[in-house]
Amino acid sequence: MSSSIGQTLKLSLFGESHGAAIGVVLDGLPGGLALDLEEIAREMARRAPGQDNLSTTRREADIPQIVSGFFRGRTTGTPLCALIQNTDTRSGDYGTLQELMRPGHADYTAQLRYGGYQDFRGSGHFSGRLTAPLVFAGAVCKQLLAGEGVSIGAHIAAVHGVRDALFDPVTLTPGQLDALARQPFPALDKAQGEKMRTEILAAKYEADSVGGVVECGVLGFPAGIGDPFFGSVESVLSHLLFSVPAVKGVEFGLGFGITELRGSQSNDSYYYDGGEVKTRTNHNGGILGGITNGMPIVFRAAIKPTSSIGKPQQTVNIAARREETLVVKGRHDPCIVQRAVPVIEAVTAVGLCDLLLSAPQKQTKEKG
Amino acid sequence: MSSSIGQTLKLSLFGESHGAAIGVVLDGLPGGLALDLEEIAREMARRAPGQDNLSTTRREADIPQIVSGFFRGRTTGTPLCALIQNTDTRSGDYGTLQELMRPGHADYTAQLRYGGYQDFRGSGHFSGRLTAPLVFAGAVCKQLLAGEGVSIGAHIAAVHGVRDALFDPVTLTPGQLDALARQPFPALDKAQGEKMRTEILAAKYEADSVGGVVECGVLGFPAGIGDPFFGSVESVLSHLLFSVPAVKGVEFGLGFGITELRGSQSNDSYYYDGGEVKTRTNHNGGILGGITNGMPIVFRAAIKPTSSIGKPQQTVNIAARREETLVVKGRHDPCIVQRAVPVIEAVTAVGLCDLLLSAPQKQTKEKG
Amino acid sequence: MSSSIGQTLKLSLFGESHGAAIGVVLDGLPGGLALDLEEIAREMARRAPGQDNLSTTRREADIPQIVSGFFRGRTTGTPLCALIQNTDTRSGDYGTLQELMRPGHADYTAQLRYGGYQDFRGSGHFSGRLTAPLVFAGAVCKQLLAGEGVSIGAHIAAVHGVRDALFDPVTLTPGQLDALARQPFPALDKAQGEKMRTEILAAKYEADSVGGVVECGVLGFPAGIGDPFFGSVESVLSHLLFSVPAVKGVEFGLGFGITELRGSQSNDSYYYDGGEVKTRTNHNGGILGGITNGMPIVFRAAIKPTSSIGKPQQTVNIAARREETLVVKGRHDPCIVQRAVPVIEAVTAVGLCDLLLSAPQKQTKEKG
Amino acid sequence: MSSSIGQTLKLSLFGESHGAAIGVVLDGLPGGLALDLEEIAREMARRAPGQDNLSTTRREADIPQIVSGFFRGRTTGTPLCALIQNTDTRSGDYGTLQELMRPGHADYTAQLRYGGYQDFRGSGHFSGRLTAPLVFAGAVCKQLLAGEGVSIGAHIAAVHGVRDALFDPVTLTPGQLDALARQPFPALDKAQGEKMRTEILAAKYEADSVGGVVECGVLGFPAGIGDPFFGSVESVLSHLLFSVPAVKGVEFGLGFGITELRGSQSNDSYYYDGGEVKTRTNHNGGILGGITNGMPIVFRAAIKPTSSIGKPQQTVNIAARREETLVVKGRHDPCIVQRAVPVIEAVTAVGLCDLLLSAPQKQTKEKG
Repeated sequence: MSSSIGQTLKLSLFGESHGAAIGVVLDGLPGGLALDLEEIAREMARRAPGQDNLSTTRREADIPQIVSGFFRGRTTGTPLCALIQNTDTRSGDYGTLQELMRPGHADYTAQLRYGGYQDFRGSGHFSGRLTAPLVFAGAVCKQLLAGEGVSIGAHIAAVHGVRDALFDPVTLTPGQLDALARQPFPALDKAQGEKMRTEILAAKYEADSVGGVVECGVLGFPAGIGDPFFGSVESVLSHLLFSVPAVKGVEFGLGFGITELRGSQSNDSYYYDGGEVKTRTNHNGGILGGITNGMPIVFRAAIKPTSSIGKPQQTVNIAARREETLVVKGRHDPCIVQRAVPVIEAVTAVGLCDLLLSAPQKQTKEKG
Repeated sequence: MSSSIGQTLKLSLFGESHGAAIGVVLDGLPGGLALDLEEIAREMARRAPGQDNLSTTRREADIPQIVSGFFRGRTTGTPLCALIQNTDTRSGDYGTLQELMRPGHADYTAQLRYGGYQDFRGSGHFSGRLTAPLVFAGAVCKQLLAGEGVSIGAHIAAVHGVRDALFDPVTLTPGQLDALARQPFPALDKAQGEKMRTEILAAKYEADSVGGVVECGVLGFPAGIGDPFFGSVESVLSHLLFSVPAVKGVEFGLGFGITELRGSQSNDSYYYDGGEVKTRTNHNGGILGGITNGMPIVFRAAIKPTSSIGKPQQTVNIAARREETLVVKGRHDPCIVQRAVPVIEAVTAVGLCDLLLSAPQKQTKEKG
Repeated sequence: MSSSIGQTLKLSLFGESHGAAIGVVLDGLPGGLALDLEEIAREMARRAPGQDNLSTTRREADIPQIVSGFFRGRTTGTPLCALIQNTDTRSGDYGTLQELMRPGHADYTAQLRYGGYQDFRGSGHFSGRLTAPLVFAGAVCKQLLAGEGVSIGAHIAAVHGVRDALFDPVTLTPGQLDALARQPFPALDKAQGEKMRTEILAAKYEADSVGGVVECGVLGFPAGIGDPFFGSVESVLSHLLFSVPAVKGVEFGLGFGITELRGSQSNDSYYYDGGEVKTRTNHNGGILGGITNGMPIVFRAAIKPTSSIGKPQQTVNIAARREETLVVKGRHDPCIVQRAVPVIEAVTAVGLCDLLLSAPQKQTKEKG
Repeated sequence: MSSSIGQTLKLSLFGESHGAAIGVVLDGLPGGLALDLEEIAREMARRAPGQDNLSTTRREADIPQIVSGFFRGRTTGTPLCALIQNTDTRSGDYGTLQELMRPGHADYTAQLRYGGYQDFRGSGHFSGRLTAPLVFAGAVCKQLLAGEGVSIGAHIAAVHGVRDALFDPVTLTPGQLDALARQPFPALDKAQGEKMRTEILAAKYEADSVGGVVECGVLGFPAGIGDPFFGSVESVLSHLLFSVPAVKGVEFGLGFGITELRGSQSNDSYYYDGGEVKTRTNHNGGILGGITNGMPIVFRAAIKPTSSIGKPQQTVNIAARREETLVVKGRHDPCIVQRAVPVIEAVTAVGLCDLLLSAPQKQTKEKG
């Protein structure tokens, strides 16, 4: 596993925050997929830092260079590799990272795992910056999925306890999802969105940070995709979602809330809508037995508060083997939830694409 | 993926509820592991149905027969296969399952996925019965982990909104975990345990069902295990946890609750306890950047209410293509949370075993 | 890898020669495949020992019991597991195997690999007996492939230097392949077949053994299947072929012989046969750049002489740490080439089935 | 599979002959491995074209740029990505490749596989040029293996039927292997080496090409590595070897030649050399039951004649759907066997590295 994943569509992620470049290889894309590079750039921009007063002032152009697998405007079917150069790096900011373990970060666990050989500058391979190639990969997958009629969109469901409205998992429309993608701070309830922004700014002014919840919806994904047990859509998506730095929880449909209902309430009863089988409620988030049932796929991911804060923190100096007070310098996001939105969408697109490309529809049908 | 998983320790699950047998192959176990078969039987009994008035009256001996990979009381290092015969099957109970889709179950999605060829009797391969071989696999892995000083234990954190106390993720002891394993209905707070039992019986008497939350703790697992991104401990465990039927949410450490804190609160600050690096709090559940930090690993899984209920439900008859009222017959669990406890522990053991056997400790150290 | 393989169709092999049972799990088969159990039994019989004076007198019924994934005469689409009970085991024959390393066998390497915990009776997991479940898996895959118009057949191309004629890789017909499957000792040239049998009997009477070459042909497999590099048809098939005990060489098309030609001779020139692109020669065995071109797939596997011989051999006693003379007792095959024929066909069927089920035909076309 | 491979050490290959760059990601290397970049450059130079009158005049600097996973002169333990820019591309040379299928090349099969979307310029992803990143990966793996005392070396065993001496698989020394690496045209018998060169030049002057055989030897690789069946060393290495363009045969030890011996001859008898178990002969090439026995690993790969030749060839124009005569323009190698030598060594190093990093030595021993 490590930094590679996928069954039919294999993704291999590489790079460090302060190395020459970061990037991704996508192996298993079908040939002939026309890529809209502007649309990819738009997705990249959604994640890019430095867009407003809510995020870090680090600025990266984040322009992906496709070096393989793309010819005459279309995918070739052979591995597609994209590189993003690291330009705005200030390694001097991170001089003490080797010794002073930042609480909440992977400094200490990386030290244990790699024995001190890891590139510790700017969190190295653990940097949130590595989500840029993920967003690139997701943008490519979204275009493939769009060709199959699939829409993916997400919003900020909560920041520091201030909650947005949630998706209606039965009536959700592609128009709603598309509208969210055009907002820098996507919230269903504008007033709550404002309150959430206020929370972030409040944290910022106190040199602190906040976290939140991202809710993601998927429409138009075919029914009958996924497998029982280890190939369940929930397993595949949660695996990817927990790969995103700072995600500490994932729930599908009502998630933890479903445990407060009775079976007579939580079971989604079926009916015929025209000739089509649908459920009247969608507490299961579009997935039963690991397999999609054709209803909207809905899930939420919990994003912890940004680990980098300006406040002094107690920690250890592993070189001196003593406790010290640390003030993390450098440029930080007081909240990464809004920047996590396109990342959550991206890994969702990657996972669904792999599930779709791995689905044995044809064979099963032929045998019927 | 489907019904196979694992990098170094590969698990392949097979069987249907009403077929000849169900079972599991574990490929990649080291040779020389002495297996305590009585201890395995004890784990199997924890999951087995028919133990008290809280679960189905279906009775299965669930005695695993090891047919390979076990010689002179120890694992051989080659694939270990265990079979569990299906004995107490009453297929007549399930006669209409082919046509009437049970809400909450995988009947309809299996129909879409397998085109009608699935063994629909008793949910077939989707049956909760398939968790028996998972518990067997987990029991084997627990013994391997125990030899490395690792303890795994879980309790019922909630049933239908009635909440147990939660683990203290800093002070948790192996003794606490072991004590839970001896309880048929493991709860930290006995009074709350009683209330939860009452909730289950209330649902039973109303031909309904309830769900709940299982909290799991792991002690003694080495620090420095796991990988960033797709090899993260959270990714590997959540993949397995969402493979367990009825799981709809997974959260590590404070999980969704961490989103209500500020970074200055959620960051776990480091200190030296003797010569050892520890954190004063453990809001991250023992995992940072996907890698264990040596603190207890703590997470929770949401289990939805049992889908099979005695109450009439609205659904579709896909043969007649019309809506019908369904009353699910057969023997059901009004709540499977207590039976899910050993299953959650089992898949955790399987995942941690694979992570441990895949860990490149030796090589990294050699190069140091 | 170890005893599991496959991308879309995953095969997990288990068992030891003298354990309770051996078997295989096939995960990823499409649902709805009607299995002809008599045909499977016929394939099993081709490999089974004790059929004539050319092979061991060990007799095993080798009747596979399908315990899952098979319902109402068809595959369900969920994992199919088949077991074969071990019945005619005489463990007493193998008493010294733990100490005296048989030359040519895996006794010593298994000892190194498993540290003495391996089931050494009758070669344990390394036994040729494990090819029985492989033949079962191959028989299932052959039926799936037959439904797609694919024929697989093989013959004994050589025994101890006596050579049969080779397939004409351009004109080969399904009829030729089918005819071979009905022969216990399949040879294209009957006279050479007789000479080969004489070689085997000569070896038998001298308590010695011989090896040989199996040539396999595949017709009707779709063109355009396979991938460059690690997904090449040659890579996938050779991986499986070298998994068969005793295989020491694999060559496609002219194989090593192609190195004696010039490019102007070895290049297969294209022409139109009606509307279809064909090659006039087929020195590449139907595969170019790892991908099938629609011509017959032809390859050969070298099978070493049976390691078990009655003659005294010099070896080491690893318990006593001294050199000793060994006379292998028990029942042996003076030649396993004829019994390897259905095994070679079987792993070929498994590999081609996985390649076919993994092929992204649909997606590529859709994007066109 | 496709262009990704490996269990613990995952390799992902990307790029096309005439794209911006080609490269490779190695995920799973341990941290702390000091890389000798000059040694890597030396390996790259061995494969690079344009070195003498035996190969193409295309000249590429082939200087790999490491963009990740390398910090302060050592591997970090996170994915290492290396890029090689394509500089000397003359796309004009390949204008008709889209229509006129070159015999022996992958033009036609790529067309079938990718539906016309493949980058056809200079064979695209199928180009022998993609072996440059493989050599890079192999050079890294060789350095890791060298630290464990492993030597890998190869020589040209035959060209167009002219045969070199073969390795003595019992007495082979690291000195012999090292000496070969310093020769541009490595042959054990210098006179035969001269004859082989003459064969190549003769083919060149007739606008034709020749193939040959590469023999590879490995010393110092630990005994007890590998698995039965699908994890066999032969399976893992053959999978990689057949991934190298133009390889049509692979044999271990005596390979096809072992089929002409009797068991009493082919079995390698054991003896004690000091305290160490060795075999007097090594007909099995150091591998029994898929597992290394500590003797030299020896195998050969058959390389077909270069497909690109200057002579006119009959082929099809798939656009016009007619037969045509083709004269392949551009710069060609009359023989690629000498350039294949470092590639064969490279994939061997990659495979052995993965086997070594995947080996469960520690766990097995601990349980003893």
